[in-house]
Parts: sequence; C-alpha cells; structure tokens
Amino acid sequence: MIIIKIGGGKNINLDNISQDLATLIKQEEIIVVHGASATRDEIAEKLGVPTKTITSPSGITSVYTDKNAIDVFLMVYCGLINKKIVVNMQKHGVNAVGLSGLDGKLWQAKRKEAVYAVEDNKTKLIRDNFTGRVESINADLIKLLVKNNYVPVICPPAISYENEAVNTDNDFAVAVMAGGLKADKIVSLFEAPGLLKDLNDQKSVISSISKAELENYLKYAKGRMKKKILGAQKALELGVKKIYWGDGRIEHPVLQALDGKGTVIS
Amino acid sequence: MIIIKIGGGKNINLDNISQDLATLIKQEEIIVVHGASATRDEIAEKLGVPTKTITSPSGITSVYTDKNAIDVFLMVYCGLINKKIVVNMQKHGVNAVGLSGLDGKLWQAKRKEAVYAVEDNKTKLIRDNFTGRVESINADLIKLLVKNNYVPVICPPAISYENEAVNTDNDFAVAVMAGGLKADKIVSLFEAPGLLKDLNDQKSVISSISKAELENYLKYAKGRMKKKILGAQKALELGVKKIYWGDGRIEHPVLQALDGKGTVIS
Repeated sequence: MIIIKIGGGKNINLDNISQDLATLIKQEEIIVVHGASATRDEIAEKLGVPTKTITSPSGITSVYTDKNAIDVFLMVYCGLINKKIVVNMQKHGVNAVGLSGLDGKLWQAKRKEAVYAVEDNKTKLIRDNFTGRVESINADLIKLLVKNNYVPVICPPAISYENEAVNTDNDFAVAVMAGGLKADKIVSLFEAPGLLKDLNDQKSVISSISKAELENYLKYAKGRMKKKILGAQKALELGVKKIYWGDGRIEHPVLQALDGKGTVIS
Repeated sequence: MIIIKIGGGKNINLDNISQDLATLIKQEEIIVVHGASATRDEIAEKLGVPTKTITSPSGITSVYTDKNAIDVFLMVYCGLINKKIVVNMQKHGVNAVGLSGLDGKLWQAKRKEAVYAVEDNKTKLIRDNFTGRVESINADLIKLLVKNNYVPVICPPAISYENEAVNTDNDFAVAVMAGGLKADKIVSLFEAPGLLKDLNDQKSVISSISKAELENYLKYAKGRMKKKILGAQKALELGVKKIYWGDGRIEHPVLQALDGKGTVIS
C-alpha cells in the first residue's frame, strides 16, 4: 500500500499525477491525501477573512483557525480541491472517492484547548483556535473502500473528541494513517524537486537520507519543511519503509519519485 | 430503507434532524441527501459571482451554472454544508460519511450539451452551462457503506459521462436513487409544514395526496414545488411506496413527517 500526499501548491500538475495513479493502481493499493493551502489563502482573502498566522513562544508559526477559518477550510479543502482531484482522477479512470477526516471519524484528533501566541512582544492565550493532532484513524473505512477498488482521496480537517472540525498537521496525519494501515511507502509531492541542500539551487537535491540523518536536517529546516521532516520521522517510527519526496510539477511525478528522482528517506 | 432529503434553506434545524436520525437508525437503513441553495447564493454573492438564473422558452427558470458557479457549488455543497451536516450527525452519534455525486461516480448524469434561454425577448443558445439529469447511481457504494453501519450524506453535483461536475435536480436524483436502492420511503424536509393549499396560510397543509392526484397539483405548483412534484411522481413510478413532505424547522422533524404531520404522497 502506498500513500500519495499531494501538496497544496498551485503548480502541482494533477493530470500528471492521475495518469501515474492509473498505471500504479494495477499493482498497488493507493490512498491519496491532499492539501489546499494556496487556494485556501486565496479564497479566504476573497471572502474578507484572510488567513492569519500565530507564533508560539518557541517561535513556531501556524495558521490561526477560528470559526471563520474553519468554514473557509471546509469550503476549499473538502469542497473545491477534494472534488477537483476526484473529478480529475475519474477522468483518468481512477475510481476516486473523496473524504475528509470528519467522515466516519476518519481522522480522530485531540484538540488543543488553548495555545499561547506571541503578538507585539506579549504572550497571550488563544482559546478559539480549532487545531489538534491526529491520534488515530478509522482504518476499517479506508480498507472497506480500498478492498472494493476505490481510491480514497482524503483531506483535513480532522474531528476532535468533542466532535468539532479541527485543522491538523497533514504530514503528521499521513504518518499516523500509514502506521494504522501498515502502508510501507509514502510519496509526498510538492513544488520542489526534493529536499534541497541550497534553496536557491534547484539542482542541489539531496537524493537520500537515512533515518539517523533526519535529525540533522531538522536543525536547518524551516517552516513547512520542518513539519515534513517531523512527519517523516513519525512515519518511519510507525513502520513505514520508505518515504519519497518528489516534484509535483513534472511529467510522471509519482513514478519519478518512486524511481528515486527526488529525495528518498529510509 | 429511508431516504431523508434535507432542503437547502437557512432555517432547517439540523440538530433536530440528527436527533431523530439517531433514534431511527436503530431500526432502519438511512441515506441522507441535502441541498445548500441559500448558502450557495450567499457565498456566490460574497465571492463576486452571484447566482444567475436562466429562463427556458417554455418559461421554466433554472440556475445558470458556468465554471465559476460550479466552483462555488463544490465549495458550498460538498464542502461547507456537507461537512457541517456530517459533524452535526457525528455529534448526535450518527456515523455519517459525506459524499457528492462525483465520488465513485455516485450520481451518473447526462449533461445537457446546450440549453436555450430567453433574455431581453431574445432566445439564445447557452453552451457553458454545466447541468444534467441523473440517469443511474452507484448503488454498490451506497450499500457498502450502509451495510457497514455508516449513514451516507450525499449532495450534488453529479458527474457527466465526460467526467465533468454538473448541477442537477436534487429531487429527481433522489427518485432515481430510491429506485436503484429499492428504498420504500422518502422524507423530504423544507421550510414549510407541507404542501399548502394557500401559500399565505401555514395551516392549509394538504395532508395526503394520491399518485393520481399529483398530476392536478402540478398545474398549480410553481418553481421549486413543481420540481418536487415531478420528483415525487418519478419516485412513485420507480417503486417508492410513500413520500413524506414535512417541516424541517420543528422539533422531531423526521418523526413528525413519518407520523403524517405534513403531506403524505402514496
């Protein structure tokens, strides 16, 4: 079983991904997880509730997800982008079924009751932030679909124990899902050819990283890349054999990533 | 098996519906279908692409669904409203799974290639209208979920044979679905106590209509009510035994409708 993670950038080539999945599905069970951050920010802006970020006292920034932001989240992740991916896959003969972490409690998360944020040099407690961490998944529902030849296409939000929709770290959720489903491979596609040694040099792709080395990269990684590395660590911990980071903008993005053209973590 | 149709009005009481379903699910298989027209119009307005209608040469008005309108449709039906219903049902202990007509080709429709519309007394041909009529359903996917104790919560759009998302008449789709699943009852909840003899008198509910009588009501019905009657006719034709129209704003909306408090068609 392979979990394909499609990043939320605007330049990801869906047609190319779907085409690869149509080939791959003949020999592998496939689950897709996707983001939608770029479109989310765009629609939030248009709706007059632009995406805000908060910074924790330790310096980590994250999206501030109040009730308005959750509404935009539902619209863009579960609606616009999830269904565009489903339609694209159907067009390429892949029998996709789109689901969110809410459906059948697919992604069960523990909500962070309150978070500290630093603003204007003052630390304040934020209580209307709907975020959490995925703790378990509904593996039965996914297996039910996969065994009946459907490709689940999954997106956040997750569902809290109090039955609220909560924003969650996608890479971490993918790791928990891979663990629960005993998936041996994760392919993560984004808008770069892999992990770069030098951010300004697209040719500086690091072709392979061992589990032990990941720790070192963590020190230098920033923002989203940091979360990706933490997600990869968690996935390896939970039994995943190989994680492939590859370019979602190129021809045969999935097959090339599996062929080691990006960064392979094992 | 009962199909519950939840109208797209703003005053429908979701908590009350979910509460009834939590009771009903102990003895019946349930499928939910919902609209979202009021919220769709609101968000379309906010996004600067207000909902437009077109009028056919025979005087029937319908929503003009171009590419922009389809995007709003995906956001509001499949995203915002579908997931709010799912979360609400989960809160009441109903294990809901939200799906659109696109997922697993749940609602297969034939797209109307071109429609005639009258504007400023001129008839013109419109080609960028993404609408169609549901011709068949993926009964296997619905049964798979129902047999595993999930409640499918389904919304349009449907998927065309060319793999496009198309807007479709929900009441007609419900009828085709009821036929394909051999459901014997449909409960349709909206913002009225049932079919009214006098639109200005909320107490003038017509309590029962026979199949033969439906034809007469068709002559007087307008707009959406006309589509509801046509949908009911189709459902009876396809083997549905009883159709209950009831008020979605009251306490126990489903149980009261099933108890004959609204309009019963049989």
